[in-house]
Amino acid sequence: MMKKYPLMGALLLGSAWVAVTHAGAHSTGGPEDLIKFRQSGYTFMAWNMGKIKTQVVDQPAQFNKDQVKAAADVIAAIANSGMGALYAPGTETGKGWEKTRVKPELFQQPDEVKKVAMAFVKEANELARVAATGELEAIRGQFGKVGATCKGCHDKFRTEE
Amino acid sequence: MMKKYPLMGALLLGSAWVAVTHAGAHSTGGPEDLIKFRQSGYTFMAWNMGKIKTQVVDQPAQFNKDQVKAAADVIAAIANSGMGALYAPGTETGKGWEKTRVKPELFQQPDEVKKVAMAFVKEANELARVAATGELEAIRGQFGKVGATCKGCHDKFRTEE
Repeated sequence: MMKKYPLMGALLLGSAWVAVTHAGAHSTGGPEDLIKFRQSGYTFMAWNMGKIKTQVVDQPAQFNKDQVKAAADVIAAIANSGMGALYAPGTETGKGWEKTRVKPELFQQPDEVKKVAMAFVKEANELARVAATGELEAIRGQFGKVGATCKGCHDKFRTEE
Repeated sequence: MMKKYPLMGALLLGSAWVAVTHAGAHSTGGPEDLIKFRQSGYTFMAWNMGKIKTQVVDQPAQFNKDQVKAAADVIAAIANSGMGALYAPGTETGKGWEKTRVKPELFQQPDEVKKVAMAFVKEANELARVAATGELEAIRGQFGKVGATCKGCHDKFRTEE
């Protein structure tokens, strides 16, 4: 498996790999579903990144520790969920909710993908940890680090709209 | 606010309410975005429910504690994320990724919505707790309870495809 699909190995990140062809009752596991699932994960993270940005960057007077922690927990849980499985062979192009914006490079540079993915997972988990402390300044700093890892991957592996 | 938008109060569930008009850089916070965010949350949960179903119901020989825990953590984190904010006035109809399937009843029966939403949040958090123990039988039982709360809401508040 690792040899045949090096990218999957690179993206496992020690978490929720499953055979994508057995994704269960909610899914046929076809390419369209896999692309939908990954687009959904990123979009739901974006909502939660937006909530944190509002409360720690744009309008810190609105800061609410519990809400920011809940949002950070979503981002960490999604980061830990093994989304690499959603980049199975056959999903290089195609449409999920919309046409995938993934670049061919993501399927060709497993070492680089692993690097950016692991950086994101690391910073996302650290954000959840820092968010639990409720320390606004620390959360703001760590939020910036997570955002940088998002951007790092987008710049390399996602086409502009 | 509570008086004007009783449903929002019903759906707060003590977690990540924020002013949806300030959802941050990733969003304009318009109805289309809110519908997209909620469809994304449910779709990403469905992927994770599917992974758990595979490993604890359909093919228990594949059971992997860490993967199931990661999936359960996603479901709990999304359950705790305050998705009630995504049912703001103006989102009763319309299109996110696709046409919303929400029924008018969701906006008319705040007490009933609160009941089914709180049941889901409770069982989802319990699933994350049980998943951390790694006990397959217990996880299977709790997974069934979460599924029942999903269905309870779908039957009442989501139109059939």
